[in-house]
Amino acid sequence: MRIALAQLNYHIGHFESNTLKIIDTANKAQKLGAELTVFAEMAISGYPPRDFLEFEDFIDSCEAQLDIIAEACFDIPLILGVPIRNTTNKGKPLFNAAVFLFQGKKKYFRKGLLPDYDVFDEYRYFEPADRFECLNFRGKKIALTVCEDLWNVEDHPLYVKQPMEELILEEPDLLINIAASPFDYDQAEKREKVLRKNVEKYKLPLVYVNHVGAQTELLFDGGSLAMDRNGRIISRLRFFEEDLQIVDSDSYSTHFVNALPGKIERIHDALVMGIRNYFQKLGFSKAVLGLSGGLDSAVTMVLAARALGSENVYAVLMPSQFTSDHSVQDALDLVKNLGSPYQTIPIKEIYQGFENELSETFKGKAFDVTEENIQARIRGALLMALSNKFGYILLNTSNKSEAAVGYGTLYGDMNGGLSVLGDVYKTEVFELARYINTDQEIIPENTIIKPPSAELRPDQKDSDSLPKYELLDRILYAYIEQRMGPEAIVKLGIDPHTVARVLRLVNSNEYKRYQSPPILRVSPKAFGMGRRMPIVARYLS
Amino acid sequence: MRIALAQLNYHIGHFESNTLKIIDTANKAQKLGAELTVFAEMAISGYPPRDFLEFEDFIDSCEAQLDIIAEACFDIPLILGVPIRNTTNKGKPLFNAAVFLFQGKKKYFRKGLLPDYDVFDEYRYFEPADRFECLNFRGKKIALTVCEDLWNVEDHPLYVKQPMEELILEEPDLLINIAASPFDYDQAEKREKVLRKNVEKYKLPLVYVNHVGAQTELLFDGGSLAMDRNGRIISRLRFFEEDLQIVDSDSYSTHFVNALPGKIERIHDALVMGIRNYFQKLGFSKAVLGLSGGLDSAVTMVLAARALGSENVYAVLMPSQFTSDHSVQDALDLVKNLGSPYQTIPIKEIYQGFENELSETFKGKAFDVTEENIQARIRGALLMALSNKFGYILLNTSNKSEAAVGYGTLYGDMNGGLSVLGDVYKTEVFELARYINTDQEIIPENTIIKPPSAELRPDQKDSDSLPKYELLDRILYAYIEQRMGPEAIVKLGIDPHTVARVLRLVNSNEYKRYQSPPILRVSPKAFGMGRRMPIVARYLS
Repeated sequence: MRIALAQLNYHIGHFESNTLKIIDTANKAQKLGAELTVFAEMAISGYPPRDFLEFEDFIDSCEAQLDIIAEACFDIPLILGVPIRNTTNKGKPLFNAAVFLFQGKKKYFRKGLLPDYDVFDEYRYFEPADRFECLNFRGKKIALTVCEDLWNVEDHPLYVKQPMEELILEEPDLLINIAASPFDYDQAEKREKVLRKNVEKYKLPLVYVNHVGAQTELLFDGGSLAMDRNGRIISRLRFFEEDLQIVDSDSYSTHFVNALPGKIERIHDALVMGIRNYFQKLGFSKAVLGLSGGLDSAVTMVLAARALGSENVYAVLMPSQFTSDHSVQDALDLVKNLGSPYQTIPIKEIYQGFENELSETFKGKAFDVTEENIQARIRGALLMALSNKFGYILLNTSNKSEAAVGYGTLYGDMNGGLSVLGDVYKTEVFELARYINTDQEIIPENTIIKPPSAELRPDQKDSDSLPKYELLDRILYAYIEQRMGPEAIVKLGIDPHTVARVLRLVNSNEYKRYQSPPILRVSPKAFGMGRRMPIVARYLS
Repeated sequence: MRIALAQLNYHIGHFESNTLKIIDTANKAQKLGAELTVFAEMAISGYPPRDFLEFEDFIDSCEAQLDIIAEACFDIPLILGVPIRNTTNKGKPLFNAAVFLFQGKKKYFRKGLLPDYDVFDEYRYFEPADRFECLNFRGKKIALTVCEDLWNVEDHPLYVKQPMEELILEEPDLLINIAASPFDYDQAEKREKVLRKNVEKYKLPLVYVNHVGAQTELLFDGGSLAMDRNGRIISRLRFFEEDLQIVDSDSYSTHFVNALPGKIERIHDALVMGIRNYFQKLGFSKAVLGLSGGLDSAVTMVLAARALGSENVYAVLMPSQFTSDHSVQDALDLVKNLGSPYQTIPIKEIYQGFENELSETFKGKAFDVTEENIQARIRGALLMALSNKFGYILLNTSNKSEAAVGYGTLYGDMNGGLSVLGDVYKTEVFELARYINTDQEIIPENTIIKPPSAELRPDQKDSDSLPKYELLDRILYAYIEQRMGPEAIVKLGIDPHTVARVLRLVNSNEYKRYQSPPILRVSPKAFGMGRRMPIVARYLS
């Protein structure tokens, strides 16, 4: 059977657009000779719709769109993901299902394993299915599963149930999995390993269709694929782009297998897609950002220019009395390299205004973080003024290391509609900069090699108040990504006082991160919806 | 059997403090003649510890504290809630359990129904128990359950399982439920109704022990109670305060039954507790806030004064060219009534600084929301400067109606460590003001009766850009609390254009609420952790 893998970029709740895209693609696939076209999990609504799933009106809309597709594609057999109502008298109100549509008939296949960890909340909305059966179509038995249904193959399985153990009893010919599997820089390998485990265990060929595109912080890399029954990839769709390929489940000869990009390339492409989709889906085209001459804003600016076009990224230089000449020059060099519009707004006079109004109140008090923050907040307010007046979205330029230890000013440099680098550690930002400069110097070399500084007081350097980034990032990775406790981190050979200090900084700055913009997620553990921490807790703080 | 109900205010992750409190209270209860002392769900760690539960180190700490309590209370039988490891080879890594401690023995009773809706994420961490058994102690059989285990009594039950149906087979003498049941203004009645349904269905007397106190946005009202087998409340502990009472499960005579406060009184007391605990648990004592002369900041200030003491609430008046004389006078009158410290910082000069720097860029552009926002952001920056310099926490004064429709300035009046009124609709803020003024005029009458205005442009009124609050709040309540779709809301008799406009405002301002401070939760559906919405969605927007 010739099966089309339709890897599309959906828009949450934008039903007309999703439906049109599905119908167009189904028609295109049929013309290319497909006998069955497979779309991703929850294709109809986009993923994740989150609490819109609690609205009857939203579920009604999903049903209405499904009818439109069923009618428009009457003679085109297709599979796609939909939320459907639980019509039994017990359990959560919905199921997460795959539906097989053909000639006016709808056959549903309910998801049995509901991810509820990290960024996933599926048990919040859905009842897990407890019975599973194959789809019979054109003489083939298809074990049709939804995403997580195939992910219970570890030695210490996260779920008590195992849908495939039931399905295999029907002796299926083929395994199809529709998914909404978000990107992180390790995910493609993890995903292929899990899929291959299923293929090898059940000795079945596999068709796997994923989402592509960004939904605010969640990035979907695509990478849909087909495997033969030996676990050999015979088709792999593009990463970070829509794609359509047709495989033959009988011959299973090799089709086009797109290469898996390297880690830094993946992060780069994911961030560019994340920025681009955020603007597109909100109906915006232009970005503004503060360009300091430092590394983070430089890398953010290049990524934005690649996502939106250089001419659509407006850079603002806002020097203060503490800004070095080389910073201004580095910022100007970058703007020149990109050919982007920019302007300079000195903050000295406004700062003077704040100082005047507060001088009485602050009399006898030393210059401290207060005055540093005032500078950052003036810049934040200027950038928002440009955003408001001209309809730009402000891009936040903080990195993950800073976000982790609270090295940033709330309502100042933490401002923005979207955080581009908030899931990229400083040491990885360096790698990104080097990657960007592979062919030519786009980011000025001086921006990369000079010691990082916030330039909010005379001769300030990040290393005055933080451990060196190599060490800091090692501790942060162990604590955040690996959930190691202080003793375990110290056993890696790191000084106990430094470990305690860093963990204290992370935990006592939860209140800042609570108010930070959404962060494009590229790691297995990003700040935001996938990491939920209490604020008033007193633990390692 | 004489059973002590120990209703305590725990601090998440503050193990030493929680353990000490548990040991002290157990000793006190024993001295008062208790034969069994019952503490709340997850008492050992505080609730909810959220993703700290993913740290082995955190679970180790819970175990270590349990050993300390077991040793210190060797001869005092007690029940308390703990997270414990799942030592089977399948499923989530933890169980949410009640433990019975006595003479060195620990007997565990695992929770079967895991709430995963609104503010709850229990399936994220815990495996649901699938077997249930009674505790045998001093000749009594006790059906010992954890919170949600008793909540599956609706006609359309949310869970397929029913722990009590198993437990009742053992013919228990008594029902004990330990809980972490957060406050909303309807919750006490809902809770007692659910508990009574169990008592009546199973014909058992009940002891129910809840948390009290605030954990950032989540407020616990206490209201622990005992019912006889007829559903009569024979003991009800205090609301919003720690309490300890002893009931006799054999005689079941009436003990002290604390009265249930009215709705507005409940909200008032909950907010005061929320402010007080937020400061206490973070180790702060002083608040700062911007006092505009309007209703929201006035009510916030009174609540803060009641929580922290008038002398610990610092009011800042920040008039602009658009501020009316009566606003300044109303603000001063309130400060005088409370006897709180205050200062006035005009923002005109700083605003002039912004105007100067932006004049070239904004040439030919009309005064719009940009200039309004600059004023709000100057105020936000001034308040944060005072917060930084003197160690105050800034209280946010936005109400729920504004938060819903995005009528507020991000990084301006949306600033703050904690939002006091963010779950209180404007019409309810009026009720709170009247309640506060019951005995004497604390909030100036003029503040209550004048038309609400942001005073960011000449003669501005909220009603220029929003429907009247009575109408707006009706639409918002239908959409947010009741999850009604546009058609259903129109059927309430409301103009379709107004409905569409309000829902569009709600949905298109999700990006603002994403960055708002944590909001003290007093309604069944507050913005924040209990309402999770995508930002880039295109649905009713």
